Amino acid sequence: MQAVSKVAIIGGGVIGGGWVARFLLNGIDVALYDPAPDALVKVTGLIDNAERAYDELLGIHRPPKGTLSLAADIETAVRGADFIQESAPENIDLKQSILAEIDRHAPTSALICSSTSGLRPTDLQKNLSYPERFMVGHPFNPVYLLPLVEICGGEQTSADSKSRAAEIYQSLGMKPLVLRKEIDAFIADRLLEAYWREALWLVKDGIATVEEIDDAIRYGAGLRWAMMGTFQVYRIAGGDAGMQHFLSQFGPSLKWPWTKLMDVPELDDDFINLIAQQSDDQAGDLSIKELEQIRDTGLVGFLKVLQKLDWGAGEVLDDYETALKASRPTAELDLQHPLPLFKTNIKSDWIDYNGHMTEHRYLQLFGETTDELLTYIGMDAAYLADGHSVYTLETHLRHLKEVAQGERVSVTTQLLGLDSKRVRILHVMTLDRSEEVLATAEQMLMHVDTNAGSASEFGSGLAAPLSTIWSAHQHLQVPNFTGRGIRALNG
Amino acid sequence: MQAVSKVAIIGGGVIGGGWVARFLLNGIDVALYDPAPDALVKVTGLIDNAERAYDELLGIHRPPKGTLSLAADIETAVRGADFIQESAPENIDLKQSILAEIDRHAPTSALICSSTSGLRPTDLQKNLSYPERFMVGHPFNPVYLLPLVEICGGEQTSADSKSRAAEIYQSLGMKPLVLRKEIDAFIADRLLEAYWREALWLVKDGIATVEEIDDAIRYGAGLRWAMMGTFQVYRIAGGDAGMQHFLSQFGPSLKWPWTKLMDVPELDDDFINLIAQQSDDQAGDLSIKELEQIRDTGLVGFLKVLQKLDWGAGEVLDDYETALKASRPTAELDLQHPLPLFKTNIKSDWIDYNGHMTEHRYLQLFGETTDELLTYIGMDAAYLADGHSVYTLETHLRHLKEVAQGERVSVTTQLLGLDSKRVRILHVMTLDRSEEVLATAEQMLMHVDTNAGSASEFGSGLAAPLSTIWSAHQHLQVPNFTGRGIRALNG
Repeated sequence: MQAVSKVAIIGGGVIGGGWVARFLLNGIDVALYDPAPDALVKVTGLIDNAERAYDELLGIHRPPKGTLSLAADIETAVRGADFIQESAPENIDLKQSILAEIDRHAPTSALICSSTSGLRPTDLQKNLSYPERFMVGHPFNPVYLLPLVEICGGEQTSADSKSRAAEIYQSLGMKPLVLRKEIDAFIADRLLEAYWREALWLVKDGIATVEEIDDAIRYGAGLRWAMMGTFQVYRIAGGDAGMQHFLSQFGPSLKWPWTKLMDVPELDDDFINLIAQQSDDQAGDLSIKELEQIRDTGLVGFLKVLQKLDWGAGEVLDDYETALKASRPTAELDLQHPLPLFKTNIKSDWIDYNGHMTEHRYLQLFGETTDELLTYIGMDAAYLADGHSVYTLETHLRHLKEVAQGERVSVTTQLLGLDSKRVRILHVMTLDRSEEVLATAEQMLMHVDTNAGSASEFGSGLAAPLSTIWSAHQHLQVPNFTGRGIRALNG
Repeated sequence: MQAVSKVAIIGGGVIGGGWVARFLLNGIDVALYDPAPDALVKVTGLIDNAERAYDELLGIHRPPKGTLSLAADIETAVRGADFIQESAPENIDLKQSILAEIDRHAPTSALICSSTSGLRPTDLQKNLSYPERFMVGHPFNPVYLLPLVEICGGEQTSADSKSRAAEIYQSLGMKPLVLRKEIDAFIADRLLEAYWREALWLVKDGIATVEEIDDAIRYGAGLRWAMMGTFQVYRIAGGDAGMQHFLSQFGPSLKWPWTKLMDVPELDDDFINLIAQQSDDQAGDLSIKELEQIRDTGLVGFLKVLQKLDWGAGEVLDDYETALKASRPTAELDLQHPLPLFKTNIKSDWIDYNGHMTEHRYLQLFGETTDELLTYIGMDAAYLADGHSVYTLETHLRHLKEVAQGERVSVTTQLLGLDSKRVRILHVMTLDRSEEVLATAEQMLMHVDTNAGSASEFGSGLAAPLSTIWSAHQHLQVPNFTGRGIRALNG
């Protein structure tokens, strides 16, 4: 299943460090080479950010983290690696010399990808002994969250290498976009540069500040771009008359003198100072680290919205999560105890105005535990599609302790009773670090025929494992708070 | 509170229709003039989309809808209007003649705004008798969801008119961006056009298809743009070294020959057909209407993610929703019956794999009902800040009927008991169209001292209204399912 087992990352800046985080959090061991003395400090900060984001994004489906080692030189880093990602500064001579060294020491079967934003792979590969396994794999910051990676081969890159790299990136939850032709800056950076040049002119000409320019995007078109590119957006704007109509209507305005010439505004000290000052004003009190965390929380939220829609980057996430789920080993449960079915960390959007987890999120976690139980006894998509399901009839929730964001909790499940159509269960949620009980949920579940809309007997596939659990659990002690109602006040 | 009471919209296409929807859904009456025979059909479709989106976005805080009338001519439309938004096709002669007619017939105190994407207000206002009240108010599609509106005055526009328009747009939940200088295409379209021209070259040169170009954005930079513009993104990329460092590092690459010249690719028939064909391939089976609904669901989701973060467009939404909440009349409740505290429609992301509302969302709605009760008895932000709150100790949920997306439900609340620290309540959720009971929740709530972390007596401000309700509710019939536990199976 796992496409690579040992990875070398050369260069640990914002991009290289992002690659380190993405590979590590996919359970892959990483050897990093970076000559900077503070390389480990920087990359550790990035990994922390990424872990927080992956906890929110994937929860319990997050694979166990791989091991990071810091290599003393390129030779040590690439030894035994089957995949190497180079993320050195954008200097062609430097990159060529680093790539030649990687090429010399890496196993000949290893793939080598460069994170360059715009240099041509043909130029980068020309001094390599095994150039066919080299290509550009261009990611976007934050590398651990944004799915896009542009794959661009050079004249000597083999088709097989490109498809192997695409497969590896895909296994990390990414969206590889394999370019048809080799061009400078690939696709995305061509678009981003055109935008950026225009933005610089707007500042240079005193039309708007950097904050106003950013606002002109993030309150408008930027929201659309998170789900649809401009062609799809314009298709919609054209309405039922279609793209042809749109182009004939809006094409001519392209010739109006709206945008500036290709000239780049002179980046002299005054202009750089102006932008830096405006950027400081825009950021206000927020540090880079705070901005990164705000950005990541937003990105995680957007990805989950898109996952719910099964659209774009959310479709990629869903495929990724499904693959992670499928590769989780099936738990071997000890039936002589309540079943340890569910673990999670407490996520930021589960917190209420009191600063701890809001009440319905407890039920959400208990519901996910019920889903784990149902999966364990064999209720799968086919069984549901066949017109069966299990509904909750009643729940009795007891809240005993508050729980804060980031805490890890576990839920166990004990069967309290079973008949041919119903199962009565008790979920107990505990805080991992103290084993204190946070909440309990007693539930009555009923098997239903979803076509008839009525109760029905458990199918034999489900009934057998339920009976097996019940044979063991009927001997467990039953807590004395079960079966009770909420007591009356005022006598 | 309401900044305008009657609005005229001239032109009911994608933009004009979007304005119709935004004003109507803010409870404002709209007169629409559009000469097209199918204008009403088109605008009705847009309003339907907008209503669905606002139900998801604002729920019960959605104001009652204004009334739409179709006017036979411009004169009728603008009669008595205090705000007029012109959204005619992008033709300067046509717009000038329409604006002159609006100017002639509208009350002299009415503001007149044009939705033009790029024409200069100075040119548009030059034949008006009252040019000081005219400006550009440039929105983004879908107008009812995207907050941005660029306000650009011409040479004759008064500062007072611009600030009045900004206030009106803000009251509609929008983010007015008032331009410092009048330029062609304002700010956003300058950026969008630079991007679009580059995208057309990528297709023309056979580098990528429209789908690949869109993917190069929506899987990468587009996700970031939904929360931060490029300057803020680059500030982060520069890391702690700051924007100055970033510019000196990446500035030079602007001079590389990445982007194309200013030439616009010739939009001949072959090229238009190529784009239209690729756009059809990209859309697959999805109609414009389906694409619009997918887009809107995503946008609503993003806005809510940003609202949770109190960031950018989400901050605008939060201010808007807070203002809507504050302007809701306080309910006069009849205490002789269970209190009708909460209504909502069932939202798309509350639906589970069985196709109906997932169990923890019932508890969410009951929890929101509890919050309404607490607000009603006087628990406000100051009371919470002072170190008091009310926690849920226990909940007994009973699920009686399934409920599907889009249904409207109501929750009533009956007090079952009260002492100095605790209140026992019963929530009952019914389906509005049939009055069937869907679910009940019996809850025990406890007043707490949040600093001490322990139970405490209700403050006198809360105790008095609770006693008043309890004096009435203690005479209500108590349903016989209350007080009971979940019964045992197997004897």
